[in-house]
Amino acid sequence: MVRPTPAPDHREPMDARRYAQLPDPFPMWRGGALHGARIAYETWGELNKARDNALLLFTGLSPPAHAASSPADPTEGWWQRMVGPGLGIDTDHFFVVCVNSLGSCFGSTGPASVDAATGKPYRLSFPDLSVEDIARAGFETVRSLGIERLDTLMGPSLGGMVVLAYAAQFPGAARRLVSISGTPAASPFAIALRSIQREAITGDPEWNRGNYPVDRPPRTGLRLARKLGTVTYRSAAEWQQRFDREPIRADMKRGDPFASEFAVQGYLEAQAARFVTAFDANCYLYISRAMDRFDLSVHGDHETVLRRAQLERALVIGVESDLLFPIAEQRALARVLEQAGVGTEFAPLQCIEGHDSFLIDIERFGRELRRFLSTSTN
Amino acid sequence: MVRPTPAPDHREPMDARRYAQLPDPFPMWRGGALHGARIAYETWGELNKARDNALLLFTGLSPPAHAASSPADPTEGWWQRMVGPGLGIDTDHFFVVCVNSLGSCFGSTGPASVDAATGKPYRLSFPDLSVEDIARAGFETVRSLGIERLDTLMGPSLGGMVVLAYAAQFPGAARRLVSISGTPAASPFAIALRSIQREAITGDPEWNRGNYPVDRPPRTGLRLARKLGTVTYRSAAEWQQRFDREPIRADMKRGDPFASEFAVQGYLEAQAARFVTAFDANCYLYISRAMDRFDLSVHGDHETVLRRAQLERALVIGVESDLLFPIAEQRALARVLEQAGVGTEFAPLQCIEGHDSFLIDIERFGRELRRFLSTSTN
Repeated sequence: MVRPTPAPDHREPMDARRYAQLPDPFPMWRGGALHGARIAYETWGELNKARDNALLLFTGLSPPAHAASSPADPTEGWWQRMVGPGLGIDTDHFFVVCVNSLGSCFGSTGPASVDAATGKPYRLSFPDLSVEDIARAGFETVRSLGIERLDTLMGPSLGGMVVLAYAAQFPGAARRLVSISGTPAASPFAIALRSIQREAITGDPEWNRGNYPVDRPPRTGLRLARKLGTVTYRSAAEWQQRFDREPIRADMKRGDPFASEFAVQGYLEAQAARFVTAFDANCYLYISRAMDRFDLSVHGDHETVLRRAQLERALVIGVESDLLFPIAEQRALARVLEQAGVGTEFAPLQCIEGHDSFLIDIERFGRELRRFLSTSTN
Repeated sequence: MVRPTPAPDHREPMDARRYAQLPDPFPMWRGGALHGARIAYETWGELNKARDNALLLFTGLSPPAHAASSPADPTEGWWQRMVGPGLGIDTDHFFVVCVNSLGSCFGSTGPASVDAATGKPYRLSFPDLSVEDIARAGFETVRSLGIERLDTLMGPSLGGMVVLAYAAQFPGAARRLVSISGTPAASPFAIALRSIQREAITGDPEWNRGNYPVDRPPRTGLRLARKLGTVTYRSAAEWQQRFDREPIRADMKRGDPFASEFAVQGYLEAQAARFVTAFDANCYLYISRAMDRFDLSVHGDHETVLRRAQLERALVIGVESDLLFPIAEQRALARVLEQAGVGTEFAPLQCIEGHDSFLIDIERFGRELRRFLSTSTN
């Protein structure tokens, strides 16, 4: 039987990712090492001849490197309206590099990757992951592109921790730092909330101590974790405006006992449903724990650490309604940057969307970023 | 073989509970009826001859009727330092009645009780429970004691919803109302948080659609639900002071992957461990859902409803750091009580213990209650 030649596969997903091989071995901050590890990244704009217009962008806990569309991948990115020509992060001026965090599952090496030594996924045999490792992996990525010094090191949320770990570990590696809704150390309240999310996953029998089949993740646990995550990423004021006590849409009703009855529950359900198929449970556990553990103080007192980093300028943005990375932590960070001799601007924003405001209130965040980034110190 | 006479059983638990039989049938607010239902209650102080010194106290989601010790039960109650001679709720003056909510599991009829019709626990065959039913059951309890009109109707948290449902359903049944960290209707944020707690329970395979053996409750789900509950009951500021980033006590460490590492996690674990053995999962689900569903507006516009209630005076206490029952809701309640012609005091307290402040900052709450309760309007 002669098979027909298959038609070109139009379902081939668009992909703008490139990969940086990390040094082998890649030593992990809390011990152990990775072999043959890589980082997935995307870029926008052009690196100039002096190689001094690079902006390295780290992400929050779960996004991929795909911050914005590009010819190679025209799908919308997680910061679509922020990264592009003439936007808050102007790709006419900057060579923007966004990395998928080490330990994540969108092309970078993490617990879901295959360990070359065994031919099987790492799962819980992946070494302890630290925010410092995510920073170092980003550092090696830009080094592989021939960039010695970044113009700007930027990150929101987890990324806001990563940029501090980067500055602490690689003095002189960046001229400017932008921390968005980040923190030098998680509060006990944030730790509590994240640890409950992890326990939702590890308490799901389907998690099976990390040994779930790839196509049968611990859905119940992941769904719960994401729902709680979503609550902590937003604010009561936003949801009052947005949902109030509206009943759930008829098509989202289920017959279960104690099924959702309110629109806000339908929203959580939709968020969670997307997440369960998109993110690996073990990767989530590793990165979430790394966020709890991160503490800039282990590198020395904050002022000394930040002075040693040789930053010229810094922008710290925080949001008044943020439950998870409260504004007081950003205020303290801005103060200590200033004390460390870094010309620092602090932008406390009145957005009502909580921790996620940087993803939503593009106008306000874009204005702050554009203003800061367009100001030269030379 | 002759058995020796058993020694007096010193392990017999102390018990000050009495029971009120509810009318049979007891019609439920959303349909259905209970037969042979009862309410467990405790009392302190003496009912005077005029029978006009009664203070009816409803509880939050999970406490029993045992608000304070008494000769019959000298163990500490949930509001031990508030209810007693000379205390915030002065039992030298008031005849205090505290009821275990209908639908709970500390002596009152609820999903864990045996349905006389089948000889088996109700479980999910228990009819839909509403805050209005909890109020009506309390109303019937005080009626059974020969009390026509309460001096004061009081409740914190869920109890703060119940007192409004009581006032709405039984005009003239109370002279004064005290709402403590309650609300006329849950916010979408509170609904989101509670619905995640319920889903933690219903997502636990051990829940088994409510048919778990009494001695094998859905522990994983209950533990998660309580941990998340605990977070929502307190505040970030309190935990910063109390735990900061202290590591967990050595004796609480476990070898599990992703086990707790911080003191705050040990605290959550201890809270949860107590709860898992103390509270019934189905009861939790019913009461938690009733809180989400409660909306005073279904009784009419707030001002009309509260005017019809014929209250003379009201005290509304709220706490600035409350995530679950935000201070704005208490402020609005106080305003509408005033508009309804009720002489109202509003006490916004600066406690940092969040929603649970009424259980902790006894001094501040006690002062407000004592002052309000000792002021006569006659």
